[in-house]
This record gives sequence, structure tokens and C-alpha cells, in this order.
Amino acid sequence: MDWSGRFFSVHGLRVRSDFGPVPAWSQPIISQPETGILGIALRDFDGVPHLLMQAKSEPGNVNGVQLSPTVQATKSNYGRVHGGAEVPYLELFRHAEPGAVIADVLQSEQGSWFLHKRNRNMVVEVGPGAEAGEDFAWLTLGQVNALLRRANLVNMDARTVLSCLPDWRRQAGAGRALHPDREIRSWITRRRAEHEVEAVPIGLAETDGWHRTEDEVAHDQGLHFRVVGVEVSSHRREVPAWSQPLLEPTGPGVVALFVRRIEGLPHALVRARAEPGFTDVVELGPTVQCTPGNYARLPATDRPPYLDEALRRADQARYDVVLSEEGGRFRHARNRYLITEAEDDLSVVSDEFRWVTPCQLNELLRYGHHVNMQARTLVAALRTV
Amino acid sequence: MDWSGRFFSVHGLRVRSDFGPVPAWSQPIISQPETGILGIALRDFDGVPHLLMQAKSEPGNVNGVQLSPTVQATKSNYGRVHGGAEVPYLELFRHAEPGAVIADVLQSEQGSWFLHKRNRNMVVEVGPGAEAGEDFAWLTLGQVNALLRRANLVNMDARTVLSCLPDWRRQAGAGRALHPDREIRSWITRRRAEHEVEAVPIGLAETDGWHRTEDEVAHDQGLHFRVVGVEVSSHRREVPAWSQPLLEPTGPGVVALFVRRIEGLPHALVRARAEPGFTDVVELGPTVQCTPGNYARLPATDRPPYLDEALRRADQARYDVVLSEEGGRFRHARNRYLITEAEDDLSVVSDEFRWVTPCQLNELLRYGHHVNMQARTLVAALRTV
Repeated sequence: MDWSGRFFSVHGLRVRSDFGPVPAWSQPIISQPETGILGIALRDFDGVPHLLMQAKSEPGNVNGVQLSPTVQATKSNYGRVHGGAEVPYLELFRHAEPGAVIADVLQSEQGSWFLHKRNRNMVVEVGPGAEAGEDFAWLTLGQVNALLRRANLVNMDARTVLSCLPDWRRQAGAGRALHPDREIRSWITRRRAEHEVEAVPIGLAETDGWHRTEDEVAHDQGLHFRVVGVEVSSHRREVPAWSQPLLEPTGPGVVALFVRRIEGLPHALVRARAEPGFTDVVELGPTVQCTPGNYARLPATDRPPYLDEALRRADQARYDVVLSEEGGRFRHARNRYLITEAEDDLSVVSDEFRWVTPCQLNELLRYGHHVNMQARTLVAALRTV
Repeated sequence: MDWSGRFFSVHGLRVRSDFGPVPAWSQPIISQPETGILGIALRDFDGVPHLLMQAKSEPGNVNGVQLSPTVQATKSNYGRVHGGAEVPYLELFRHAEPGAVIADVLQSEQGSWFLHKRNRNMVVEVGPGAEAGEDFAWLTLGQVNALLRRANLVNMDARTVLSCLPDWRRQAGAGRALHPDREIRSWITRRRAEHEVEAVPIGLAETDGWHRTEDEVAHDQGLHFRVVGVEVSSHRREVPAWSQPLLEPTGPGVVALFVRRIEGLPHALVRARAEPGFTDVVELGPTVQCTPGNYARLPATDRPPYLDEALRRADQARYDVVLSEEGGRFRHARNRYLITEAEDDLSVVSDEFRWVTPCQLNELLRYGHHVNMQARTLVAALRTV
């Protein structure tokens, strides 16, 4: 009844939630229980740290090759259960010296599209023995940050790993956050404890409001996304050829972060989001995260807070770049990422929103399951502005 | 097919695990998806902080009344869906001023007996308006710590909340931990990512090796625990009378922590444990946590590491107290808690074990789902020795 890829399947999910405008729905969702490794190797060249980046194509990319981490491997990849060639550089991560591990944390992936999916995000310092092979290059953090300002270039997996890299510009004690860390943790705890999201796996055929044809599973009104089957072949992959489902969103999304200085210290406006696929109910997301087309039918009062403000002021954004989500699972999934200075009179509209500092986000990123994928992209982007 | 209490039910669980001597089994487990509040109010009297403790009886207690937190409330309690009287002091926690919240974190409960159970552990500072009602008393932390050395007196819910209280004796920079925080986090990440526990809910009747009679569900060999039905009445409870299942372990357990100074700094030997009911695969537990009777049939090589050492040296323990687990869900569940100075030649037998400092445990306790219930009791106990 479900739809299986090599390492994952698509099934149905029935959701009840006391968040958001829709209290109950069902939808297809990708189930990929394996935890993979997303890893970037870091090497010092004459005192300047460099990152080993990979030019990698994925079947769902709009443009073929994107800049990817040193390693993107599921456990099936590296367990070699499907045969295929070895994943280059994998052992640098699997058997890293404990003292060489700069970041190593389990982070969630898109909670509206993946059920309980997470990957191990790693940055490992390597010695001079590690050389860049074909399709790999050593880039400085400055170079990678510059490329993060180009459309559809730095891929999602690279962005999430970059967000977990401790921020070397971090200035301790430069000022006081609007809310102390303890208050932010308590707020997250309360949002997790007081609100409920019930997500029950069901068969794909039982998803109300969706239909399946020979080629796809799609929403009856053409909203949200469809799941399509694709045939993939590449001489560079670990396995010669395969067919798999890809999730294709109906339109580009908008992901926006409002920022401002409070008492001289930079802050960002985050939202405690409950996405049905999250392992722990709530994670912090950007100020705005949505596909505007999905709200066309709903009353204006149900439009996401701050969306209109973000679009109206997009021409003043400090960061305005279209980036792709993961091309191995999604087809042509793109979001317009915006970072915009908030106007002074921007008010916090509900308990779902809080101003937090980038330092506070860095701290939460060390523990996993606190900052969602879209917000992690913006954490990486914030370091480029 | 399952067995329902007021706020929870007992069903079956099928487990596959690559941890421990038994790769697959099924068992009854308590399902209580609601997140409750365990809260202790803290008030300053002439510069000395006092904790508002409650003398509270529970149906499964060996001795009637134990010393409990200010509030122990499930959401059904405080949502009043079952009718009944108001929970005293609850509003101090539900509507605490953000700045008055000293600790507020979701912590797991016994992962072998509960599926994905967790409670919100809170410490809230209150003003002079909060008075101790009948069955309540203001005690200093020193008094509570002294009572923690009495058998079956400070209850489990009080102990877990106490462990989340920031340790006021904490000496920053007094020395360097054997493993930096980053290494400990990476070790936990790796244990979670590389090892798998699959836990699938099943009907109670499908649990192989267990049988149900009119009065109980029990293991065919009399191991582990049985689930019994009890009738409860109490004029002090929010609901006049009810019947419910209680989980009764077959014998007392042993929970032991080895401690030692490394480079002058105290360390404790913790184990990365995978219990089937954990939300996130692995949490840190004590050096030893088991019911020795369950291992009687297994070969000596399958006995838990350090168990024999802990029992052999129990007469030298710095802490040796029998404490009860929660009397609202368990019947006569007791563990012998031991804290013992390790001998110099005690070796770390596998990657499941690490020496960590109490400061590192305090840090992990701020984020939840990192330190298990039994280890949290020992964190509280460690502050009394």
C-alpha cells in the first residue's frame, strides 16, 4: 500500500494538532528511519581553516550539481547493504578521534515531509593526509559563505552542517539577551508540554483528500506537494541505477527571518513550530515558513503572521536568495530565504514567537531537535550578512 | 485487549535491540502519553531558600506517605477532565512569571516500564504570599538532603525535580573534566545514531512469554514484573475512588554509581543505556542499574558490568539507601541506591561507559532526555554526600 524507495518509503500520516488553523488532516509522508551522516572535513592550511566540499548531483536538483558536504551517507550506504562502491572520506567521520570532532549532533529534517527523520551533523578536523579527490575541493569558510549568497548552489545538507559549526565570530558577554537562556528553555518546554500533536502512521490509500494515479500521489486540490516516481542513473553513485519516489512541492516557499538589535545586541524573531514529523513536538523555526500558494483558499486571518510584512519589505532584505532543499528526496523544492531588518514597531503577535540572539541559537544547536532545518539554513545565512 | 487506568493504559511492546544480551523480546509496558507537571516551589525565608514539600500517600507505596514535590499533576488532573478537586499550588507553576522559573525541563521516566513517558520538571521561586497548607511544609535544601538519606522517604518525583535544581555548590573552573563537554555530546550522538532500538506497540495478549489471569499479567518464569489491579480510595485525592493497574517488580533493584577524583575533580562512571521506552534511543544511566534476580538464569558473562563489584564493596559505600520508585504507577518498587568510591584499578570496560563530572551532568540535565530517572536520583543523592 506504501511506496518504497531504496532507503525509505512513503506512507500516510493522520495528524491531530492544537497548533495552526487546521486541527486535523491526513497526508503522505516520507519515512526514513535510518540515521545518516552529513559530515564536513575541516583542515588547516597555513593557519586558515578550509572545508572539504563536494560537487554532487542529485536527481531532484533543478540544476544538476550543487555544493555538498564531504559526506552524505545513510546507514544503508555505509553499511553497504545495497552493495555499491565505498563512500569516500566516510571513515574520517565514522572513526574520528574524539578530540578532532568539532560538532556532532542529531538534527531533524523537514517535519512536514519527513516522519522522525534526522541525521548526524558532523564537522571533523583532519590532518594533512586528507587530500581533495575528484569532485572535491578545499574552500575557506569565507568562500563557502560567499557561495551561500548564490541561488541554488550550497545544498541543504551543507547548510545544516554549517549551522552546527561553532560561530567563530561569537562575542561572549557583548550584551544581554532580551530573554535569558533559562527563559528560552522554559518557553520551549512549556510549548512542548502544553500543546499536542498526535501523528499516527496510516496506509497511503487512507489519506483523505489525496489521490493516487499510476505516476503520482497528489492532493485533490493540487495543494502542498505531490509524490512522483523517477528513474535515476549516474556513474558517480554508489549503486548503478534505481527508481525512487521524490516529493515535489507545488510551489516555491517563503522562509523569512526578521532581525533587529535590542540594547545593541542582534536578535532574531523565531517561532515555536509544531510539525507533525518532529521527534519532540516543537522546534524553533524562522519568523515565516510557508508555501504561500497553500493559503490562497483560506481566509486572510489564517495567513501566517509576518508573511505579508516579509514580502512587502523583501526589497530591503539583507539576504534574499533562493535555495534548494535536498535533491535526493525532494524534486525542485526551493525556498526564497529572506533576512530582513525589522521595523521598530514590529510587535510580537503571540506566545509562539520570541526574540533570541544568534548565540542562543548556537547553544541550542549543540543539543539537536531544537532548531528546525529552515531556521538552520538561516543561521548559516546570517553569518554571511 | 489492553488494560486501562484513569490516565494511562498497559499494552504490549515488541522490542528489537542491538544493545544488551537479549536481541529481541516482548513485554507489557505502561503508556501514558500525557505530560504532567512535577513542581517544587522555592521561597526565600530570611535569605535561606526553602522548598515546599508535600506529605503524600500513593497506592503503591510500601509505607503510605512519602515526601513529595509541591505539585504532581497530570494534564487530566489539571485539565479537570475527570472532575475532582483543584490541585493545590498548580497555578504557581502553570502561570509562573518567566523570571521566577529556576528549572523547567522535560525528563523521561523509567524506559523499561513506560513508553515515551515524560514529565515537566519545574522549580519556581515564589513570593511571601505562598503559605504551606495542610500536608505541606517548607524545608531547607539541607533538610531535604538529610531526608534523602532515609529509606523510602523522599519520593521519586521529588528526587527527579531536585536533580534539575542547579547545583549551588558548583565550582566553575575548578579543574578540567576527563572528557570535554563536546566529546561527551559526540559520544551520546554516536551511541544514538549507530545503535538501534525498534519498539512496536502490540496488544497485551501478543506479548510472548507473559500470561494474563483474572488478577494480573505476569512473566511465565516469574521474572521482571507483574501488573496487578488495585482498588484505591482516599479522601485527599482529587477523585473519590478508582481502580487502576500497578506495575510490581519481582524484586528490589540495585542502582549504583562509582565515583572517583580524576586530576582532583570528582567524576562519576555513567553508562549510555538504551531502554525501549526512551524517546531518543539512549540516555545516560548509572554505572549499574538492574534487578539481580532477572539475571539468575543467564550465564555469568551476561551479568551487568560492575554489578558484582558494586555489591562486594557496598559496605564501603558513601551512600547506601533503599528508595521507592513512583507509588502512583508502581507497587512496592524499590531500589538500593549506592554511591561508592571506585578503586584505582577500576577499568572502563566498553564504549558504553564514560567518566563524567557532576557539572557535565548538570549541563545535560538542562536539556532533558539525556540523564535517566535512576541517574537523576543519584545526582540528587550525590549532593548529600
